[in-house]
Amino acid sequence: MIKTKRVAVAGFGNVGKGVIEVLLQGQIPELKLEKIVVKHPGKIRPFSVDPSLIVTDFSQVIRDPNIDVIVEVMGGIKDAVSLILSALRNGKDIVTANKVVISQHGNEIFSLAIKLGRTVGFRGTFVGCNALIHDLSLSARRIRRMCAILNGTCNYILSHMARSGISFEQALREAQEKGYAEANASEDIDGLDTAHKIQILLGVISNTYNIPPDIPCEGIRDITMQDIQYAKELGYAIKLLGVIERENGSVTVFVRPTLVPHGTMLASIEDANNAIELENDLGVVSGLIAPGAGTYPTTVAIINDLLDIARGATLMMPTLNTPIVLNDIGNIRGRYYLRLTVKDQPRVLAQITRILGDHDISLASVIQKESAPAEAVPVVMTTHEVKERELRTALEKVDQLEVVKAKTKIIPILEGRSQQPAFIR
Amino acid sequence: MIKTKRVAVAGFGNVGKGVIEVLLQGQIPELKLEKIVVKHPGKIRPFSVDPSLIVTDFSQVIRDPNIDVIVEVMGGIKDAVSLILSALRNGKDIVTANKVVISQHGNEIFSLAIKLGRTVGFRGTFVGCNALIHDLSLSARRIRRMCAILNGTCNYILSHMARSGISFEQALREAQEKGYAEANASEDIDGLDTAHKIQILLGVISNTYNIPPDIPCEGIRDITMQDIQYAKELGYAIKLLGVIERENGSVTVFVRPTLVPHGTMLASIEDANNAIELENDLGVVSGLIAPGAGTYPTTVAIINDLLDIARGATLMMPTLNTPIVLNDIGNIRGRYYLRLTVKDQPRVLAQITRILGDHDISLASVIQKESAPAEAVPVVMTTHEVKERELRTALEKVDQLEVVKAKTKIIPILEGRSQQPAFIR
Repeated sequence: MIKTKRVAVAGFGNVGKGVIEVLLQGQIPELKLEKIVVKHPGKIRPFSVDPSLIVTDFSQVIRDPNIDVIVEVMGGIKDAVSLILSALRNGKDIVTANKVVISQHGNEIFSLAIKLGRTVGFRGTFVGCNALIHDLSLSARRIRRMCAILNGTCNYILSHMARSGISFEQALREAQEKGYAEANASEDIDGLDTAHKIQILLGVISNTYNIPPDIPCEGIRDITMQDIQYAKELGYAIKLLGVIERENGSVTVFVRPTLVPHGTMLASIEDANNAIELENDLGVVSGLIAPGAGTYPTTVAIINDLLDIARGATLMMPTLNTPIVLNDIGNIRGRYYLRLTVKDQPRVLAQITRILGDHDISLASVIQKESAPAEAVPVVMTTHEVKERELRTALEKVDQLEVVKAKTKIIPILEGRSQQPAFIR
Repeated sequence: MIKTKRVAVAGFGNVGKGVIEVLLQGQIPELKLEKIVVKHPGKIRPFSVDPSLIVTDFSQVIRDPNIDVIVEVMGGIKDAVSLILSALRNGKDIVTANKVVISQHGNEIFSLAIKLGRTVGFRGTFVGCNALIHDLSLSARRIRRMCAILNGTCNYILSHMARSGISFEQALREAQEKGYAEANASEDIDGLDTAHKIQILLGVISNTYNIPPDIPCEGIRDITMQDIQYAKELGYAIKLLGVIERENGSVTVFVRPTLVPHGTMLASIEDANNAIELENDLGVVSGLIAPGAGTYPTTVAIINDLLDIARGATLMMPTLNTPIVLNDIGNIRGRYYLRLTVKDQPRVLAQITRILGDHDISLASVIQKESAPAEAVPVVMTTHEVKERELRTALEKVDQLEVVKAKTKIIPILEGRSQQPAFIR
């Protein structure tokens, strides 16, 4: 006996239209589209909808006893939060694809939902890594490390720079022309969108809605074509990664451009795809490549939430209020790529390497190329394993040298992790 | 209120030990290990187990009213089928990792389970693509196309041949030395293991346990180092693929070596990993890379089944008896790689291309290299799109030419499918 859930969709934009289209096809007996909330009822839609479904006032669905679940896909923050909270208070379950709302207001929303015994589905906020995260949360396993490419715009720009040998500015312009980046691309290229998703995933993985409001986050704005070329020579691609790693009770979390070894799955991700690599506490590593956004990928995520609600399955909603203690990224031990900008004159390298040596920082490689006479030239180095705090202390001194002409760029290098050796057919 | 399921594990081999280890850790409140069935109770185990858990006779767990679920990980066919059927009749749910049992006896097992209202979990039979298949089945979406690398041994051999420029025989020998292939590797290299998994997935995807007992299946035994090198020059890797594709109500299913375009996810899979690429009926493409076997990956799959049973979630068990009508692979339209073995003498190419032309088969490329004088030399061709039946008819005539010295090898070429263009952040 199937119990049908009656659904209202708030929003008829890119995502809303996909959800409405699938619900109207009527192939899912558990779900019935009851109402659509739109701002502009007169607007022309990609397909026609029975006018009796359309309402313009949220309160009409929030108070409607014939609505069981509200899908919030209208975007924005203030109105969306207020809709979600009132809907919960009125006994509705919620499904949302709103990353900013969940990453910044998850605490308020989840704690209220739990108090009221309601469900909030938010797979739509991390479309590209849904399947693996769901599988992990199902399996009662803990994550050891997660590395993910979660922003299609950044990955498009970085892979386009690598493929075509063009500058960041030019790649961004082309991404904007092709509709892969918005006119104001800051949310993407400064890493904020990735950070929102990492905050949400951190909550899911740790089963807490008390997620840190800020995490260390660095975008791709000052990655140069030269960085990408040097990295390539050294055997790496540069990707904007979100990383969550647990070790001995502490959690390291950051969003940063990172050198990823060629031949790994993450290095092979091109264009606007998302990808995630997970290692669980049994050492099992798996990877997922999926579109991180788009009408239908997001629609599938939302429909999966609705179906879980209709079937009474447990959703991946964090249920505890446990605070998360983040490891200071100064404590990270790892290898680093350094791009120094120095005067093209004798004995410059000697001055720099002496300071690094004094701080016990040992170098794995140095690349300095012949160049046309110029005010300043790049010198690229990679370090052996070092503690990031010590590296930064040394580089502060290096950057004070008269021959160093700009702040040294530091990019972490991701170490490949070998797979579980156990093998049976 | 958590209802604990009491579990018996039948088998203490590679997989059994992982499941037993995780259950004994006691971190999963829904699952309690009650009994372990072993053949040789005196055998030394990787960790010690309370002797009161050990029994040597299946009937002891089948008839034990304190057992709710039996995990069948003992291998073999006849005993495993008989254990599963009796256990179902005695009111137990079943979780198994036994591919041959599920692909060859799924009909009997699933129909009995459905009649009795019991559950059979079998995620362990397709470890490498679990997460995506589960997500798909959850989403009430239909698959349009699935292409998968499902056998670690074959992928190890093919990627090792490509990397090291060695012959099939040498790569197989090294795989056997390293424990990646068994002494009798036929099940792997002749494609049977992949075919079993494809049969199981076909049932899951189509929600029927009436799966065809045989599907078109060709292994990698006669892929030569030259095939791999020519394919590489043409921009492809050779992979053993299992493919399921639906179009207009018919289903095309096969296991065959296939040319996969460089730069795609499937072409990038190295060594013993498994990978799957799924396209659903909304055009959403996603890919998963995961170990296809191994103690802990299989353990996680089995534990997920147990947890689904404990939580009363719907498992991916096919519930209908609908027969599947397979499209004759002669009807496939596609591009092909052909390796002809011809006498090294003038006008050979002219004779061959005339026959192909008479059958309307047009060529995309021809590679014939200068070679030391020899009885027979390879000529490689790729075709434009053609119906496989027509190609085979033409090649039968070609192979009858006096100048053609061996049966022409035909390898299909996988066409890249571009992703859903819709893009939002």
